[in-house]
Amino acid sequence: MVGFSASSAVFRRQNFLIRCLGGYSKNKNNNFYLIRMQSAMGGVNSLEADAISILRSITPTLDPTRHKGQAGKVAVIGGCREYTGAPYFSAISALKLGADLSHVFCTKDAAPVIKSYSPELIVHPILEESYSIRDEERGSISAKVIEEVDKWMERFDCLVIGPGLGRDPFLLDCVSKVMRHARESNVPIVIDGDGLFLVTNSLDLVRDYPLAVLTPNVNEYKRLVQKVLNCEVNDEEGSKQLLALAKRIGGVTILRKGKSDFISDGETVSAVSIYGSPRRCGGQGDILSGSVAVFLSWARQSAGKGELGMSPTMLGCIAGSAILRKAASLAFENKKRSTLTGDIIECLGRSLEVICPAIS
Amino acid sequence: MVGFSASSAVFRRQNFLIRCLGGYSKNKNNNFYLIRMQSAMGGVNSLEADAISILRSITPTLDPTRHKGQAGKVAVIGGCREYTGAPYFSAISALKLGADLSHVFCTKDAAPVIKSYSPELIVHPILEESYSIRDEERGSISAKVIEEVDKWMERFDCLVIGPGLGRDPFLLDCVSKVMRHARESNVPIVIDGDGLFLVTNSLDLVRDYPLAVLTPNVNEYKRLVQKVLNCEVNDEEGSKQLLALAKRIGGVTILRKGKSDFISDGETVSAVSIYGSPRRCGGQGDILSGSVAVFLSWARQSAGKGELGMSPTMLGCIAGSAILRKAASLAFENKKRSTLTGDIIECLGRSLEVICPAIS
Repeated sequence: MVGFSASSAVFRRQNFLIRCLGGYSKNKNNNFYLIRMQSAMGGVNSLEADAISILRSITPTLDPTRHKGQAGKVAVIGGCREYTGAPYFSAISALKLGADLSHVFCTKDAAPVIKSYSPELIVHPILEESYSIRDEERGSISAKVIEEVDKWMERFDCLVIGPGLGRDPFLLDCVSKVMRHARESNVPIVIDGDGLFLVTNSLDLVRDYPLAVLTPNVNEYKRLVQKVLNCEVNDEEGSKQLLALAKRIGGVTILRKGKSDFISDGETVSAVSIYGSPRRCGGQGDILSGSVAVFLSWARQSAGKGELGMSPTMLGCIAGSAILRKAASLAFENKKRSTLTGDIIECLGRSLEVICPAIS
Repeated sequence: MVGFSASSAVFRRQNFLIRCLGGYSKNKNNNFYLIRMQSAMGGVNSLEADAISILRSITPTLDPTRHKGQAGKVAVIGGCREYTGAPYFSAISALKLGADLSHVFCTKDAAPVIKSYSPELIVHPILEESYSIRDEERGSISAKVIEEVDKWMERFDCLVIGPGLGRDPFLLDCVSKVMRHARESNVPIVIDGDGLFLVTNSLDLVRDYPLAVLTPNVNEYKRLVQKVLNCEVNDEEGSKQLLALAKRIGGVTILRKGKSDFISDGETVSAVSIYGSPRRCGGQGDILSGSVAVFLSWARQSAGKGELGMSPTMLGCIAGSAILRKAASLAFENKKRSTLTGDIIECLGRSLEVICPAIS
């Protein structure tokens, strides 16, 4: 076991850095949760989040009196003729972490394939791409898509928008409408992949919506910075720029994926640097989006705990980032170069169990 | 091994709850099969069934002289464009417990997906939803569906109606006809999910049919009580109300799912409180419906034993409830929060083997 185990080399090294090189200081508006580490190599502050405490704090205890659905119901909007793996990875990750129900809303072509990956998912074949419809049908089909998603909307604790969504203009237009309805119902939205393409071109979809989370990779982040801040990515002032970016979009939370993940909601910046895996197989971002959706839902439920002093979206991102890294590390220990996304998903449960035993 | 031990804290807590919720009094016609447990903590009777003895009594011995089919042939009616996991879970659970053949009758869209989950099932793509047919075809298609199911009907030991059935009016109309034919052939019917939606709105489908079993969850039970008894669920008089409900529908058996499962056929009430798992992932109700179908079939075959003094439907429900709980407990021991319905199904065989070894 690597990573969170108190006896592991990585954990010891992290603790050593924290102990040796600085304490923790709370900022004046009580809205920060940062461990300021003075680096062993220099004197620079670090933003490393205490992901383990956060995971322990937001993960609900399992209680036999609870009913189906109370541990989380998430929905992934994605999956088209071309892409079917991404929405599956995202939706099944949510279940493997402990969500009770996980839905996928995808195109008619994608549905039988995604269903066949696992009988555990509920897959709705309702989206359409331009190639399959006539112009005069666009209005009625769009209305039907919205009606179908709306039937379920209020039951969901979180939507994930983007995994394997594709870039068909008609489909993206329908998904824009779904996002507007989600906002009206105060349902949190995690946006990744082609959802970020959509949002970067239509920032109003998420502007001033504090329950939106964007999870850009290097290129997606670059486009977002260019579009919103009208400049290039500045890595030397990385966290400052991330903070400004999140603030400028009106307090959405941005998880900037990289060697370390940096997360900001425009109020605070945190980092997650737990060692994951050097393997960069496609699909890990989908695990992340599904994981963030679950943890964000749990963080909202446990909001009363308060002592963490961060928004549920920040907590969800930190927890999701940490658990993916831990699972990737466990999978890599076993499968090495051969590690695939499905192997990492199989390690999600064990990764969480080490930190928050289901029965304590 | 976890679950059946009387010494566990969970077991003690359950007993405490049963005691708190009221006692039990024997009815005049001597048709009860209850173990009166004097709790270590108090002295009040319980309704807890001796599920282990029942399982041992109804499970047939494996005998090399028997032919294919003699250990049970069940059919699940369910599976539509939207839902495919539920009928699979129900049908495969029946096989994993020891049934010889398990069929699924579903819509044309659902069939290839359900077939892809497992080559062990026989999947008939015969049902139709309104969207796929023209008005003038309704009569002929309905007749064809009935004809197809009728070809098989008398070979089945039990039907499960409802897992992933959906609520399309035309489809539900066809399924109503299937239920009427099953009654005429004296084939037992286990009704769950959308089948309960159908039956709650058309009580005549099951009224006065002692081979019908309803397996409602919290919400489905609430609707049933409102519709039949014209009042709200009364948990303080829970078993009395359940008994009245089953009696009012004319002696159908009702398995009310919850922290403890309560079962009544209008003559007697039993409870199953064996500790299962705190995980509430969707799909566990489908395992239950498939399991009840098998045990009910076996209980009918072993009816001559008589000493159990309960109807085969009661015995089937008690056995199904107990085995699901045991399997859920085994799966949870291993997979914890990550436990999915498929993991529980993988533990069905072992759960039964512990109680009734195949080779003694």
